Amino acid sequence: MNLLLLRAEERLSSNIARVTDPRRLRHLHEVHRARRGDTLTVGIEEGGIGRATITGLTGHAVELALDELECAPPPPLPVHLLLALPRPRMLARTLENIAALGAKELTLLHTARVEKSFWQSPELSESRIRDHLVLGLEQARDTRLPRVGMAPRFRPFVEDELPALIEGRRALLAHPGQSVACPYRLPPGESVTLMIGPEGGFVDYEVERLQAAGFEGVHLGERILRVETAVVALLSRLF
Amino acid sequence: MNLLLLRAEERLSSNIARVTDPRRLRHLHEVHRARRGDTLTVGIEEGGIGRATITGLTGHAVELALDELECAPPPPLPVHLLLALPRPRMLARTLENIAALGAKELTLLHTARVEKSFWQSPELSESRIRDHLVLGLEQARDTRLPRVGMAPRFRPFVEDELPALIEGRRALLAHPGQSVACPYRLPPGESVTLMIGPEGGFVDYEVERLQAAGFEGVHLGERILRVETAVVALLSRLF
Repeated sequence: MNLLLLRAEERLSSNIARVTDPRRLRHLHEVHRARRGDTLTVGIEEGGIGRATITGLTGHAVELALDELECAPPPPLPVHLLLALPRPRMLARTLENIAALGAKELTLLHTARVEKSFWQSPELSESRIRDHLVLGLEQARDTRLPRVGMAPRFRPFVEDELPALIEGRRALLAHPGQSVACPYRLPPGESVTLMIGPEGGFVDYEVERLQAAGFEGVHLGERILRVETAVVALLSRLF
Repeated sequence: MNLLLLRAEERLSSNIARVTDPRRLRHLHEVHRARRGDTLTVGIEEGGIGRATITGLTGHAVELALDELECAPPPPLPVHLLLALPRPRMLARTLENIAALGAKELTLLHTARVEKSFWQSPELSESRIRDHLVLGLEQARDTRLPRVGMAPRFRPFVEDELPALIEGRRALLAHPGQSVACPYRLPPGESVTLMIGPEGGFVDYEVERLQAAGFEGVHLGERILRVETAVVALLSRLF
């Protein structure tokens, strides 16, 4: 936790905040070994970043005196990620990585090789998704939560929603076996819609359908990577 | 498991192999739902890759008829990774990622912010390290195991071993706050020694010492990444 991310309601006045949830309290006690008088980096959700001093610390609450929180969070990546829904454990780490790397738009979608049962996972609840995203923001010292949408049906999504998502942007389809390697370092300001398949990849029909819709297929080399690894590899190569 | 990696002793003759260990048997049964007559991709440790047909399958053994295993494994990355020893759970995933991405030389080293207890972890046993590396190779369809060395004392390592490791190579020190961004896509054939710090980073003395030894400091932007994420981000950006 390189930044303590405060929800708006945890800020009691412009320069006082109180945190009471067990996860962050435990982290402050056990990992930071925090004491009254210590300073740490804090950020307000969707807002600025600055320093705070611990003015009170018990097993039930931490009270903080906030400096001006006037540093802007790091710039977001200009990408909308379209990710075939990964298996629940992989989803958790992938959400953390996506938030840490600075992507702000994510749509989880169904494809032929996504197991239907994944859509029933408790990991897809709003609060669990939020928890994982917050871990990524705390790690990377960011305050802006990614927005996460769901597209549980492939064809309606491709027909009805995709055209608007790729309009005026570069559309990349990461898929092993494509003839073009994923580019390095896109020109600053170029916006991208990046689609990443499930374990086992897209089926041929999906690749054809997406290429017809305007996606360029790109590969990351001969090596097949896990989804959580591929997301990091693609984002850090493109941006 | 995109490749079944066979140890030399599991190959009973040029075209017959038998696998009996519980982990891979369970994976073949439960994930692949393998049946007699199915074909799958196999590789011989440190050797070639090809297809095999399942000729026998019980709860205790899988027997395989091997085709010619004449495909070469994917090319290795020209990098020697020097990694401050991560906490055990993070080490496991990092080893998997390193193997999947194709790095073949790894030295785990002690630095000021590595907790001494990490060196006592059972995850550092030869067999546990090997297990994690094999998972990465199985994922990426590679057959060549990375070599893993240990440097449990920083100064003697820097003084006695480092000069030979960076001789004739580019030496990069990944550390937040450096003035130069990590380069993208090194010229083909350029060999790199890449040093990555622990959670909390290197201390100033270490950065100075390594820069004096010839390392260029590079950063990955404002965002602080977990070690396992940073390793993937750095390797996929550099190569």
